[in-house]
Amino acid sequence: MNKNSSNTMALAPNTSNKRETVCIFGTGDFGRALGQKMIQSGYPVVYGSRSTQISNLIPKDAEVLGHAEAAQKAAVIIIAIQRQHYNFLTTLAEVLHGKVLVDISNNLKLNQYPESNAEYLAQLLPGSKVVKGFNTVSAWALQSGTLDASRQVFICGDDVEAKQMVMNIVRGLGLTPVDKGSLLAAQEIENYPLQLFPMWKFPIFLSLGLGLFFFFYSLALDVIHTYIYENNNFSFFIAITVPNRVFPAMALTLFGLVYLPGIFAAIIQLYRGTKYRRFPDWLDRWMLARKQLGLIALAFASLHAVFTLVTPLRAFSSWRTSRQIISQALSNETVTLDHTNAWLSDSYLAMGMLGFFLFVLLGITSLPSVSNSVNWREFRFVQSKLGYLALILCTAHAMIYGGKWFLNPSAYKWYLPDIYMLSLVVPCAVLVVKFVLIFPCVDKHLTRIRQGWERKPRYSE
Amino acid sequence: MNKNSSNTMALAPNTSNKRETVCIFGTGDFGRALGQKMIQSGYPVVYGSRSTQISNLIPKDAEVLGHAEAAQKAAVIIIAIQRQHYNFLTTLAEVLHGKVLVDISNNLKLNQYPESNAEYLAQLLPGSKVVKGFNTVSAWALQSGTLDASRQVFICGDDVEAKQMVMNIVRGLGLTPVDKGSLLAAQEIENYPLQLFPMWKFPIFLSLGLGLFFFFYSLALDVIHTYIYENNNFSFFIAITVPNRVFPAMALTLFGLVYLPGIFAAIIQLYRGTKYRRFPDWLDRWMLARKQLGLIALAFASLHAVFTLVTPLRAFSSWRTSRQIISQALSNETVTLDHTNAWLSDSYLAMGMLGFFLFVLLGITSLPSVSNSVNWREFRFVQSKLGYLALILCTAHAMIYGGKWFLNPSAYKWYLPDIYMLSLVVPCAVLVVKFVLIFPCVDKHLTRIRQGWERKPRYSE
Amino acid sequence: MNKNSSNTMALAPNTSNKRETVCIFGTGDFGRALGQKMIQSGYPVVYGSRSTQISNLIPKDAEVLGHAEAAQKAAVIIIAIQRQHYNFLTTLAEVLHGKVLVDISNNLKLNQYPESNAEYLAQLLPGSKVVKGFNTVSAWALQSGTLDASRQVFICGDDVEAKQMVMNIVRGLGLTPVDKGSLLAAQEIENYPLQLFPMWKFPIFLSLGLGLFFFFYSLALDVIHTYIYENNNFSFFIAITVPNRVFPAMALTLFGLVYLPGIFAAIIQLYRGTKYRRFPDWLDRWMLARKQLGLIALAFASLHAVFTLVTPLRAFSSWRTSRQIISQALSNETVTLDHTNAWLSDSYLAMGMLGFFLFVLLGITSLPSVSNSVNWREFRFVQSKLGYLALILCTAHAMIYGGKWFLNPSAYKWYLPDIYMLSLVVPCAVLVVKFVLIFPCVDKHLTRIRQGWERKPRYSE
Repeated sequence: MNKNSSNTMALAPNTSNKRETVCIFGTGDFGRALGQKMIQSGYPVVYGSRSTQISNLIPKDAEVLGHAEAAQKAAVIIIAIQRQHYNFLTTLAEVLHGKVLVDISNNLKLNQYPESNAEYLAQLLPGSKVVKGFNTVSAWALQSGTLDASRQVFICGDDVEAKQMVMNIVRGLGLTPVDKGSLLAAQEIENYPLQLFPMWKFPIFLSLGLGLFFFFYSLALDVIHTYIYENNNFSFFIAITVPNRVFPAMALTLFGLVYLPGIFAAIIQLYRGTKYRRFPDWLDRWMLARKQLGLIALAFASLHAVFTLVTPLRAFSSWRTSRQIISQALSNETVTLDHTNAWLSDSYLAMGMLGFFLFVLLGITSLPSVSNSVNWREFRFVQSKLGYLALILCTAHAMIYGGKWFLNPSAYKWYLPDIYMLSLVVPCAVLVVKFVLIFPCVDKHLTRIRQGWERKPRYSE
Repeated sequence: MNKNSSNTMALAPNTSNKRETVCIFGTGDFGRALGQKMIQSGYPVVYGSRSTQISNLIPKDAEVLGHAEAAQKAAVIIIAIQRQHYNFLTTLAEVLHGKVLVDISNNLKLNQYPESNAEYLAQLLPGSKVVKGFNTVSAWALQSGTLDASRQVFICGDDVEAKQMVMNIVRGLGLTPVDKGSLLAAQEIENYPLQLFPMWKFPIFLSLGLGLFFFFYSLALDVIHTYIYENNNFSFFIAITVPNRVFPAMALTLFGLVYLPGIFAAIIQLYRGTKYRRFPDWLDRWMLARKQLGLIALAFASLHAVFTLVTPLRAFSSWRTSRQIISQALSNETVTLDHTNAWLSDSYLAMGMLGFFLFVLLGITSLPSVSNSVNWREFRFVQSKLGYLALILCTAHAMIYGGKWFLNPSAYKWYLPDIYMLSLVVPCAVLVVKFVLIFPCVDKHLTRIRQGWERKPRYSE
Repeated sequence: MNKNSSNTMALAPNTSNKRETVCIFGTGDFGRALGQKMIQSGYPVVYGSRSTQISNLIPKDAEVLGHAEAAQKAAVIIIAIQRQHYNFLTTLAEVLHGKVLVDISNNLKLNQYPESNAEYLAQLLPGSKVVKGFNTVSAWALQSGTLDASRQVFICGDDVEAKQMVMNIVRGLGLTPVDKGSLLAAQEIENYPLQLFPMWKFPIFLSLGLGLFFFFYSLALDVIHTYIYENNNFSFFIAITVPNRVFPAMALTLFGLVYLPGIFAAIIQLYRGTKYRRFPDWLDRWMLARKQLGLIALAFASLHAVFTLVTPLRAFSSWRTSRQIISQALSNETVTLDHTNAWLSDSYLAMGMLGFFLFVLLGITSLPSVSNSVNWREFRFVQSKLGYLALILCTAHAMIYGGKWFLNPSAYKWYLPDIYMLSLVVPCAVLVVKFVLIFPCVDKHLTRIRQGWERKPRYSE
């Protein structure tokens, strides 16, 4: 402990002999881990157990007593036993009267019981002060001391002083308590550690499906078609060329899908003439997934950027350059600069880069700490104004890139449009409808609907 | 509500029948939106209104009563009416005595009234407990449920328990209350939602002005001069070449402007011989804008990096390469490597990349969550030591890049210096003066001035 | 103050005449800076001093009185004197009885005294309410108003109301109070401003040592060996080529070192058959440094990416391209695409880019605000699953890149393996052992050891 004290200081504050005794009911894994951490942080720990003999697993320096005796030694009692054994605690109701009981239990699935474990405990022992906490911390992390992830411990409870006592213990362990309010929040806190990116599921499955479609579409047109009709085996295109056709198509389509629900919402509101009716469920869910869709679009845009920049390093690319230059040299023709081509090439590159730059800015503002430091007006400005500007630039980037092939019949292999045309469908639709929506007459009407207070005075009684 | 419960859980915690009734005075837009959100989160809502008939806009499940009856039903009353109608509330003073009044009003401009609306309300109803809150939340966001931006609700008030009650409601709505202290903070909270990046205005206007100057300067020398004197129409340079001369010039100049006020401050302190006098106003403002200037400089540096890396993909670039290689091939000369050139090329690229890398590190440490997790000493170390190192590397990058043309008269088109020379003025000035300032004799004197406690003991009585 | 009020609003809230008087004992540097800031924020300030004459350094508008008279004027007294003079305060015990004393002192080194200064003060004056605070704020920053770094002020104390009063003052100065609990936290708060990246020391020294080794190894093989045996002076390789061999080697080795301690821990637990014994000290320290090692690895990976992408812009690169194309043109041979080479080139590039992309994702999730917004299960998923995937991709990237030289004797200059082989040692070892560890029989056993609650019920009494 001495040698690495400077390193672990932030994790384990200096031991002090003033800490008050904490009682832990239950000698299961989490009870042991928490007890060990508390002893390391200077808290005297006493375990309450039916048998006082299984002491080899209990941390050294901890006392093991019967439940009643243990409870009498401390003001705060950690209830490290499972919910189905809670009713046993009613036999100790008298000893536990006035004590602070910390419910640290977790369930196996979301909303397993009608009420949260902590509320159930509070009903069983109305004389005790129940506080929910510590359930979001991992036993393994407590034990190994490697709290790389969040140090936040969510706390809730109806008694302010009891909550304060538990929050002081949390701080004493080197963790950060976060007050989540009354015991009503216990259900949410118990559900919290069970979820695995709930907001990301729909966007990720959507991206996967879309990605697979684009991949096989591009594979068919860029590799298989070339192999069949031009007899060129470009199977190595699977590594870079095909992905780099899928990535921008994904990025552009998903970016369009971020703004599409807003367009739908505006049309629904215009049609209904009011904002005081709920949107259909699918639209609500879609709007809640916009941030995630946008971040996935940004990920694909980043991959597209890197896969494009790496082009000159590819063996294929240097082969193509050599072949082209040598054929020019052998044909003895004068190499002249095609100004139209130079304009097109430079302007689609510039638009792509500027659009990507704004897209990255949008991504940065969606970092929690950044979006917390701007107000609603600023957030809307960035996400809406800059977001549409980025969408316009990226759409223009794709249009100019593909412009020269657009009317060229040879670009339609198997009579199918190229992948870049498919990727333009959603963003173009969004931009066209948005363009109509910002017409002064439409916009004024929509603004009036959205800001009830403009149509009639807010104090309308 | 059932289908997407797993998705929206974080937004709308499970409904519970234990929530206490909340009363809302006023049936304007924000009052309705807030009431709807509260009903969704399980709070019984009763509206207080002069006429109890305009119920079609009021959320279903909400009761509408006269003001006095409504107020009697709840301990917390949301005052969703405009400041100019507050004096009407004095007629209800008796009913409102001891109640918690939540002022949610906003003004139309900064510091519109001498005192904040919440303080005015507290003066009118001295028997009630006024809490300021909810004004930073958007009605539209509440209603659509898409709180992508901050979930933080700033709260202030003089009565701790009243504040606690309001904070519990905030948490019940799935939002995060932030305690801003006593009612004195109401003015700041009321101003908060009105501002639009106040700290960014000066840096952005400065950058715009500087950027336009550099753009036309580069346009004149790189496009127009070439067109007139070399008869080459390089108008497509506007897309990439000209911006990529403007971006680095902007980045370097703004980066220098970040450190210039610190230089001025040191000189002023050395001249005055004390730090106990305020700097002139312009210097104070400039120092407050350093972070923003630095981030804009970083944005331009990033654009410069991407616009440079894209070079080999340009049609112009492949044309130039072809022409050069073919002319070499036709002239049958042996292609030898110019070692000096290779050194120069590699070292200016390496310095640029390392400087940019350090610059990005600086940018990351200025993210709110990162800068909150380092102490003052660490922040100073990164921003000052690493910052100057980055400035030195970037300045050297520009100098070596342009070095070969520096003394070449043909580089001075129209007798004007090239843009890279202009961009070196500010950073070189900063570095030269800084170099003088870190001379031991000067530095020692300055440190003594800055750390009063070194010249005389801190407890100097 | 008027002109830039919109700019500095967030820093200096509007002056108000309701603020209560604050007393400051001591007229040293920090006392003066704090007093000036308080006066600017509208607090009447009275200084307590032995002599009331040194008023030229004291901010204007501040009163200077004897200690006793000054203390009587305020409920909150800032103790801006050094610890060694604290015992003088006992003579004022009567006047200070019931007052809130704010200890703002700092020490010169970590854990300088057995107890913290604030606890010492509380022992001396048991009748006063001691609160620790303000010591993490820099006097220079207070005075210049440029609080670019953290606005957080750590507060701790045993009396809740006293703490509340100090937190209100902190908010009144435009800063953010952070409640760190009881006075036991004072030691940690006093140590906080003294540390300089304590968690980074070991990883940075390790990287420096490793980096120097790789640098000289690459210098010997790539520059000196070429000079001696091929008589080619490629000294300019020091700028880009050699660093770009060192960077990926560093990134891969450090990335492996992030996962190595986890492998060791698993082996130790399997060998011991229990998780209820502490790991050796070196392993504990290593595990605590994993995040830092990973971020340094990411930094090197980013540098490698940029140094690689810049390749086509190098003078050396265009010379090599020219020479190669011209020699092909002169030899009149047909340029055919080597498909194996195209496959290898494209797949190692693609793997490198995808691995880097996942690595950047890992880096983003380790930003404090992002890791605070995911639960433990989500954090583990990203760091473990995605982390190993990134490691596999990066290792494959290096293997395919070097694959063609692996069995080629000419690649072993001076009989030494190339640098890319050295860099593969650690990640390959990690991946091989990990592969064994996820065999169902081993994995099941390990999981049982790690989740005590699976082997025996958690409520094991």
